[in-house]
Amino acid sequence: MACDVFALANVGVQGLHPYQPGKPIEELQRELGLTSVVKLASNENPLGPSPLAMAAAQAALKQSHLYPDASGFDLKKKLALKLGVSENQFTLGNGSNDVLDLIARTFLSAGSSAVFSQYAFIVYPIAVQAVGARAIVTPAKNWGHDLDAMAAAIEPDTKVVFIANPNNPTGNYLDRASLSAFLAKVPEHVIVVLDEAYIEFAGVEDFPDGLTFLSKYPNIIVTRTFSKAYGLAGLRIGYGVSSPQIADLLNRVRAPFNVSIPAMSAALAVLDDDDYLIRSQQVNSAGMQQLCAGFEALGLSYIPSVGNFVALELPCDAMPVYQALLKEGVIVRPVGVYQMPKHLRISIGLEHENTRCLNALQKLKSEGVLD
Amino acid sequence: MACDVFALANVGVQGLHPYQPGKPIEELQRELGLTSVVKLASNENPLGPSPLAMAAAQAALKQSHLYPDASGFDLKKKLALKLGVSENQFTLGNGSNDVLDLIARTFLSAGSSAVFSQYAFIVYPIAVQAVGARAIVTPAKNWGHDLDAMAAAIEPDTKVVFIANPNNPTGNYLDRASLSAFLAKVPEHVIVVLDEAYIEFAGVEDFPDGLTFLSKYPNIIVTRTFSKAYGLAGLRIGYGVSSPQIADLLNRVRAPFNVSIPAMSAALAVLDDDDYLIRSQQVNSAGMQQLCAGFEALGLSYIPSVGNFVALELPCDAMPVYQALLKEGVIVRPVGVYQMPKHLRISIGLEHENTRCLNALQKLKSEGVLD
Repeated sequence: MACDVFALANVGVQGLHPYQPGKPIEELQRELGLTSVVKLASNENPLGPSPLAMAAAQAALKQSHLYPDASGFDLKKKLALKLGVSENQFTLGNGSNDVLDLIARTFLSAGSSAVFSQYAFIVYPIAVQAVGARAIVTPAKNWGHDLDAMAAAIEPDTKVVFIANPNNPTGNYLDRASLSAFLAKVPEHVIVVLDEAYIEFAGVEDFPDGLTFLSKYPNIIVTRTFSKAYGLAGLRIGYGVSSPQIADLLNRVRAPFNVSIPAMSAALAVLDDDDYLIRSQQVNSAGMQQLCAGFEALGLSYIPSVGNFVALELPCDAMPVYQALLKEGVIVRPVGVYQMPKHLRISIGLEHENTRCLNALQKLKSEGVLD
Repeated sequence: MACDVFALANVGVQGLHPYQPGKPIEELQRELGLTSVVKLASNENPLGPSPLAMAAAQAALKQSHLYPDASGFDLKKKLALKLGVSENQFTLGNGSNDVLDLIARTFLSAGSSAVFSQYAFIVYPIAVQAVGARAIVTPAKNWGHDLDAMAAAIEPDTKVVFIANPNNPTGNYLDRASLSAFLAKVPEHVIVVLDEAYIEFAGVEDFPDGLTFLSKYPNIIVTRTFSKAYGLAGLRIGYGVSSPQIADLLNRVRAPFNVSIPAMSAALAVLDDDDYLIRSQQVNSAGMQQLCAGFEALGLSYIPSVGNFVALELPCDAMPVYQALLKEGVIVRPVGVYQMPKHLRISIGLEHENTRCLNALQKLKSEGVLD
């Protein structure tokens, strides 16, 4: 092409990394000749999907030729009751990633800035860059958000602050007192996004529920997902909760049919599956203890996590360890993209999956790969 | 809230219409006390979903706790073979609406403009407005795109031209010679979007397949969907085909998990269901003849259509007719939002559904509602 297509793209888009098409696990498995793999790479729910959710999704498939309900009437009604907010405070998303994108597209543009922390969830820098806004990245403190630094980093053109609580990929969290003090410092014209994708796993006493701040601080957007504790990552559904005014703006930008019929039906059903949620939390809690005890027995450090994953800290570059684990049939997540070259993020699996991961690490240690 | 949230939004977003939450049909039915309704409002496939697609989606639901394949490896491979293009020319979307949004977000911004026709698909003005770009709307000719006017309307800051072929809601189309002559006139630095959501229904000899222009004009993006002839509107999946360079840019902006697991599986399966596609086309063709003959018998005009819908032209304001049809249990689509206050867009249904619509119109005519 004579014409330089790249130059036609918006400047922000030009600055995005080219998408790297990946191979499905099945392909990888075939190539490596592996007969069985354990995937602890994507913070997915190791229980498999909720039976109630699957039955509902299956029944809903009959309607696949029809458009979804653009307003998410039933789901918003149920969520509103469950969370003690109003239907008009919701923005449904094709995963909470979609809601994060909608926030950037609604409030950010070239000429404004967003604040987020070093090591925070990768979607923040991408969403900010895509709309050509300026990213203000504050240095982490103990691998976590430094809220004082974040408050101080807010500039006159700052329109959004992104906070992940718990954070992915580090797994650490901000307690109620710290978050509360931070919110009191943020100017009311700055939107604060509280990304709570992993909140259901954070079973600690002083963990703040972002929704409790909504009445006091109407500049807050809480985002949540059905992808993690609710086990519906493959169906793509999440949501934002905010003031009705903010929800009105986000819903103007939202594509009306952004959430599919099976996703909506499964989400409605899983909200009733308390047993599934409790089992998810129990399996995660037990698995976290198992993995961390195993790491300690191997003399390996990790970042204490309240998520469904843990960032293992290696004494060496993580990539050779990642590759060696792959050959053992254990898929974990290298986090070089987060500038954490010595960490591997390991999702909590079922007991036998965690055992397999620990055994593989033990083998690599005995082979000197972890030195 | 003391702070004016509205003023915080990007100017383009402020100009978008607030989202109007609608009620599901079931609610409407309950309110109106209707025992049975016929919905000919959303250009959905009246056959219901393909059995092959449903079986595939159902089997895939088992994987709902896992993230989808972000690269759409299998689907792109199959589509590439079927369409005679390469895997790296695809951009998968959460419906083709998502691809249209991605195009606007990639190439348009405040300071650039997009050209599209009066009465063209509503997503173009919305996508353009959302990113704050300027819309250049050319007057329609006989309710269709005036390509000479569109070529002449391109300005130095124009980066995208949107063309729907066939167009929704009018149903008319651009023939091969006209489109070819237009493409030769468009500067190579202007992206031309050929939105072919309804192409499978356009069984006319001189209808152009946008893909055939791709090798000659690398500034083209063809968008297609599984929502119409393939009957998967509720699962949300569509795609763009373009030069690899354009696809690279669009995929940078695309959320990696924008297409769900059941959508991807169903799409893969329906591509093998030739019988379903042929039946979709046959039912549509027969239904189009039935409806149009019925309109003529009633002395009503319509815009000749090659889609799976037809825009009925009334001698009066369409809204009272829409309301009266609703009370008869026949849901059609008013198109006031398109500045077509005297038209109703009626989707082609099954024979008995079309009959019910025609009978209702006959009744309204005898009651003087159509005068």
